[in-house]
Amino acid sequence: MTIKDIARECGVGVSTVSRVLNNRPDVSDDVRRKILDYVEASGYVPNNSARDLVKTSSDAIGVVVRGTGNLFFAEMLKTIGAEIESCGYSMVLRIVASYADEVKAGAELEREKKLLGIIFLGGRYNYTPAELSTITVPFVCCSYDNSFGTLEPAAYSSVSVDDVATASLAVKEFLKRGHRRVAVLLPSCNDHSVSELRYKGYVQALQEAGLAPDPTLIVETRGSFEMSAAYSAMADPLERTHDFTALLCASDVMAMAAMKAIFDRGLRVPDDISVIGIDGLEFTAYSIPALASMQQPAEEMARQSVRCLVDTLKTGKTRHIFPVALLRKGETLRSL
Amino acid sequence: MTIKDIARECGVGVSTVSRVLNNRPDVSDDVRRKILDYVEASGYVPNNSARDLVKTSSDAIGVVVRGTGNLFFAEMLKTIGAEIESCGYSMVLRIVASYADEVKAGAELEREKKLLGIIFLGGRYNYTPAELSTITVPFVCCSYDNSFGTLEPAAYSSVSVDDVATASLAVKEFLKRGHRRVAVLLPSCNDHSVSELRYKGYVQALQEAGLAPDPTLIVETRGSFEMSAAYSAMADPLERTHDFTALLCASDVMAMAAMKAIFDRGLRVPDDISVIGIDGLEFTAYSIPALASMQQPAEEMARQSVRCLVDTLKTGKTRHIFPVALLRKGETLRSL
Repeated sequence: MTIKDIARECGVGVSTVSRVLNNRPDVSDDVRRKILDYVEASGYVPNNSARDLVKTSSDAIGVVVRGTGNLFFAEMLKTIGAEIESCGYSMVLRIVASYADEVKAGAELEREKKLLGIIFLGGRYNYTPAELSTITVPFVCCSYDNSFGTLEPAAYSSVSVDDVATASLAVKEFLKRGHRRVAVLLPSCNDHSVSELRYKGYVQALQEAGLAPDPTLIVETRGSFEMSAAYSAMADPLERTHDFTALLCASDVMAMAAMKAIFDRGLRVPDDISVIGIDGLEFTAYSIPALASMQQPAEEMARQSVRCLVDTLKTGKTRHIFPVALLRKGETLRSL
Repeated sequence: MTIKDIARECGVGVSTVSRVLNNRPDVSDDVRRKILDYVEASGYVPNNSARDLVKTSSDAIGVVVRGTGNLFFAEMLKTIGAEIESCGYSMVLRIVASYADEVKAGAELEREKKLLGIIFLGGRYNYTPAELSTITVPFVCCSYDNSFGTLEPAAYSSVSVDDVATASLAVKEFLKRGHRRVAVLLPSCNDHSVSELRYKGYVQALQEAGLAPDPTLIVETRGSFEMSAAYSAMADPLERTHDFTALLCASDVMAMAAMKAIFDRGLRVPDDISVIGIDGLEFTAYSIPALASMQQPAEEMARQSVRCLVDTLKTGKTRHIFPVALLRKGETLRSL
């Protein structure tokens, strides 16, 4: 029995069955129940990654994930797996530590599994052609691009929000609401990575509004995205003077930690300080107050990454897609 | 250069270097900086999973993780990887969907990689000997056991908190604080899995205190651990009467969603309702108010799992370890 048989028996589309089997939310309870009941009664075993992973035939697409605890990647991974399957390929998954060399992992996986192509979920922003020479199949950089590197655009594909524009949009939202003292919390201003790009967007939006960036409002965590580092880093600016009314954070989890630091000093969000995160993770919509965040279109990015790669496999053409992050309003924004 | 060389050069222990390379928090900033500077200057490439994964020699221990988005597993995985390495083995990682058959994945991995043994991170509680016959190497059930199955204890090892005792302890904390109307939010009361065990602990603690479980205070999400399901499930009991003063949740993320549901109805935590979660995830310590939670000793469990397996490889003996979950107090508890 295949997913198509289930769809036919239940009188629904293949994509609906796929959504239910992947535990995605956008299916009505009735339809979900019907499909799950049928699946249970029939003893169907999904043709999922558990089985696909051991295939070594030439229908394999490799997915290399950098960072085991990255919530944003965990959400995207589900969609990537489903999309690869629905395009008729199988997925080979490899997860490496956040400090690991994803290119080396990809190169090894390519040879070991005879991959057709690779999707890198997370990686460095500064690849050189020499470094990538070990990858001999088409690849897609998903959620990052080559802003600080020297790859030829034709040599790869990428699907990544424009990080400069995303941070800039967030700051403009603060400015629109009358804020003038806007702080930023981020790992580093010059790490040649996502944090530097978001810092650039922060500066750019301020300068366009005729404001000079104030060094005392730039809070760095010495390279860390960890909550503990974000919480600690906020201590000094909050105790010093608390002369800012808005705070942009380089990630949602950093924003959660920053809100706690604000709260623990007897200040309130958004009454005293408005906060915007970046990522739009599901669980931060349940924070109290619900976090405003620049929401990366994770599902769309995941789907686009697979389609980019499949296109390249079929036509040889590469693409660079910059989906837009939109503001998820939440409850952490106040107008002055 | 190996991790031992780095330790010697920096004048610290191997475990300290390992902690830094795995980005663990329990190292002073000075030592961390020293090690990272040395690592950077020396161009050291960690002997991490990216490389270990392709080994097919007989030093490989398989780790099969069920569920891509499980935060608790993501935290444990780092420690398991480091511990396997420090015991002199290499790790082969496989991650399968939460609905997938982890035993089948383990069996395939065993043959494909010539594994010495397997650690299952998450799985079903009701294995039969026949189902496990495809696994021919020693294995450890990490974070779950065989409560509803028929395996011989000598046939496997397990490292899992006692789920009944954990839930019971949480309820006793409420009772000690004067609460009598204690609700519980969980996926299911009879799913032959972790949720059923925690339900049993809830009932047991009430009965020991001479209280009869009230069916109107038992809130099920029809099998889901999702935040959206937890949030929705709380609507009815909160609107009906709100005649409970304490709420035990089967997981931390469900507790986050429940707190939001409580807040969105104009009620307060802990003033109106005290809340305890189960897991003790890092990020829920940053919720507002900080979530009280039965903290599973994740690092210890991860380490014990590896050591159990290594012991079995050396001596043939299996073990069943039930570490204790302790209350992380947080700010969501009130005494009546």
